[in-house]
Amino acid sequence: MTASTSHGLTVTEVRLTPVLVADPPLLNTQGVHQPYTPRLIVEVVTVDGVTGLGETYGDTKYLELARPLADRLVGHRADDLNRLFAEADQVAVDAARVSGQVDVGGLRGVQTADKLRLSVLSALEVACLDALGKSLGLPVHALLGGKVRDAVEYSAYLFYKWAEHPEGVPAEKDDWGAALDPAGVVGQAHRFTERYGFTSFKLKGGVFPPEEEIAAVRALAAAFPGHPLRLDPNGAWSVETSLKVARELADVLEYLEDPTLGTPAMAEVSAGTEVPLATNMCVTTFAEIKEAFTRDAVQVVLSDHHYWGGLRNTRHLAAICRTFGVGVSMHSNTHLGISLAAMTQVASTVPNLHHACDSHYPWQSEDVLTERLAFEDGTVRVSDAPGLGVELDRDRLAFLHRRWLDDDGTLRDRDDAAAMRVADPAWTQPAVPRW
Amino acid sequence: MTASTSHGLTVTEVRLTPVLVADPPLLNTQGVHQPYTPRLIVEVVTVDGVTGLGETYGDTKYLELARPLADRLVGHRADDLNRLFAEADQVAVDAARVSGQVDVGGLRGVQTADKLRLSVLSALEVACLDALGKSLGLPVHALLGGKVRDAVEYSAYLFYKWAEHPEGVPAEKDDWGAALDPAGVVGQAHRFTERYGFTSFKLKGGVFPPEEEIAAVRALAAAFPGHPLRLDPNGAWSVETSLKVARELADVLEYLEDPTLGTPAMAEVSAGTEVPLATNMCVTTFAEIKEAFTRDAVQVVLSDHHYWGGLRNTRHLAAICRTFGVGVSMHSNTHLGISLAAMTQVASTVPNLHHACDSHYPWQSEDVLTERLAFEDGTVRVSDAPGLGVELDRDRLAFLHRRWLDDDGTLRDRDDAAAMRVADPAWTQPAVPRW
Repeated sequence: MTASTSHGLTVTEVRLTPVLVADPPLLNTQGVHQPYTPRLIVEVVTVDGVTGLGETYGDTKYLELARPLADRLVGHRADDLNRLFAEADQVAVDAARVSGQVDVGGLRGVQTADKLRLSVLSALEVACLDALGKSLGLPVHALLGGKVRDAVEYSAYLFYKWAEHPEGVPAEKDDWGAALDPAGVVGQAHRFTERYGFTSFKLKGGVFPPEEEIAAVRALAAAFPGHPLRLDPNGAWSVETSLKVARELADVLEYLEDPTLGTPAMAEVSAGTEVPLATNMCVTTFAEIKEAFTRDAVQVVLSDHHYWGGLRNTRHLAAICRTFGVGVSMHSNTHLGISLAAMTQVASTVPNLHHACDSHYPWQSEDVLTERLAFEDGTVRVSDAPGLGVELDRDRLAFLHRRWLDDDGTLRDRDDAAAMRVADPAWTQPAVPRW
Repeated sequence: MTASTSHGLTVTEVRLTPVLVADPPLLNTQGVHQPYTPRLIVEVVTVDGVTGLGETYGDTKYLELARPLADRLVGHRADDLNRLFAEADQVAVDAARVSGQVDVGGLRGVQTADKLRLSVLSALEVACLDALGKSLGLPVHALLGGKVRDAVEYSAYLFYKWAEHPEGVPAEKDDWGAALDPAGVVGQAHRFTERYGFTSFKLKGGVFPPEEEIAAVRALAAAFPGHPLRLDPNGAWSVETSLKVARELADVLEYLEDPTLGTPAMAEVSAGTEVPLATNMCVTTFAEIKEAFTRDAVQVVLSDHHYWGGLRNTRHLAAICRTFGVGVSMHSNTHLGISLAAMTQVASTVPNLHHACDSHYPWQSEDVLTERLAFEDGTVRVSDAPGLGVELDRDRLAFLHRRWLDDDGTLRDRDDAAAMRVADPAWTQPAVPRW
């Protein structure tokens, strides 16, 4: 490649395709996953005809920002990312989308204008890196300084779960069955290990009273002695309850994730237990780091690369965590294979990744790739193929986009409480702390 | 470029060439610059025959580490940098080279094993990025996510200075003349602006009693009203003296650099003045950041990319500073054009660079490049040529290396106090605080 052909990296088009993907009836403290969840698929096309892929959250508030941000990439080179990020704040964010607080429904943490922009930019950045890698013949990890491991470890992401979505609701079937008590959770964990070889386990809690969830974790510890275990109630507990759970599970927990809401409460819990606290709720932006780290409120930050603005910012976050003696790993929300490939590429480059990453991917029966990514021995192998090493299946993309087009709007913005009300009309968003 | 030809990025050879380069008799609190100062020039050669250039400190303690670290690069790809950095701690550092304290002679801050390794790795990293850029047809800034500015601003680096090195000492002549009082400093500043267009000024202090240096800064403020001014006594003052100087110059200083030694003392000064404090002495490693930032000891970190391990780590540092509301700019020690090109490339990618960078480059009459970098209107233009955009002059390199070979060892380790003793046999390293 010569300097003159490097103009072939100029972006001529960005295609934005919202989709709805099947999601099982997984329970959390807010309610239940909808039968279909929105995601946005991004394709960045260069003048040389190379296409790079990205993926992010697909709710309306992200779609609103995707076109104006994508327009700021068109006509520029795929390697011109710092400029794109620096200019992003010129794209206005609807004030109604922004809330400075992690509210009761805020499973995704604060919703600042910057964070919403970064969540969209992450997909553009990943797509640019994929296009660059394909153009240059380099895997994305090489564009990030190279991998330090050949496979990235993931944990089994256990959920309390119904056998199926409420009767009468259009939904895909799944073969996981119900999990509503310790035996169900252990059964699910066995299935995860048999299918994928996972050796660490995270239970999404905040669904049942703490005693029941403590019993579930105890049952996991008995079934998988010595394996790393985590419990994540999404901030559903008071400081007192958090400390009680930490005390009762101190001997088996790798970490406790977001037991309570907000940095001040997390700092109180942290001061009262030796169990490390992880978060993907009180530290989801660079602006939240200073207070959380100076108060020693968290010991592990779980990066969702979408929130943080992509793979390069995730590396910055990892450097900040390393500098402050805070652990780092990766969070997941419902996502497809493009994001799993992106997570795996960046995770392979982070030296201080000492905990298995989370991924919902095993729960997703649908994807937009010609070939699904595989978990072997609880890990995903790091692709050395150019770019992300994945290929778009246009028929699948069109099918899932058609589902989005056909939706009357009820599923285009994920709302776990609304999904719960279908089964239980009396359901209201629980007040926090719930216990 | 295809995946198969990407093997052309494999490093087959690393050439390490120590040189001695002419340095004028610039004064600081330790003594005076030697007539020649050691630097190390690094050439990384790939199997495709592309050569990348790097540069770092050339004292013996760095040379000792350069060969074993370079050997860990040979046989690997030039983009395999994270692995190189992760494995670097397997290279042993002579304990005699390490001191946990910023001692009296410690113009370069702490000398930890990690920092010594990173100082050498920085040159290997820059050389790899240069080789990668040349191979891929991309400027180094594109490998760092792209420039956000087309030119990088530098400040005039003013020194108290003798007209020439002590009589009888082999040395190159310079045409800058002496600067030993306010009028001399202002004259030097005028010359800087005429030759290079600099609009901000840094005076290396700690040489004369604070009253004289206050007078020099006052004279600069009178001669260049409204221009950013900085004073850097390299930690020569007590907390009380630092606060006195800050009070007297509060209306004209952009920042005060390392008035006193160590984070606790800097924090005391910081608490007592509104003048921002900058440092290149108490925060020169990632390990020093946490204490300094949580105590609000410094408001600007001046990155020497050699100390921090190169351009990618400098970007991490900038992200950390941004996260904690601390400013960032760049420090310089005596260096050649390869490092100026590297500084300019990385500086062009850092959005939160709000202060002109320092560079000794105008003081260096010698270089190893076919064409010197130019300052225009106080800036260096950001090269868009592949790699760093500079070319090695092998004859000049051989000439400066010959000087190093011919040296009997007295100049191979920079020692400003020893150089001062040539003129003043009674000179001893001043106790700190000196004033």
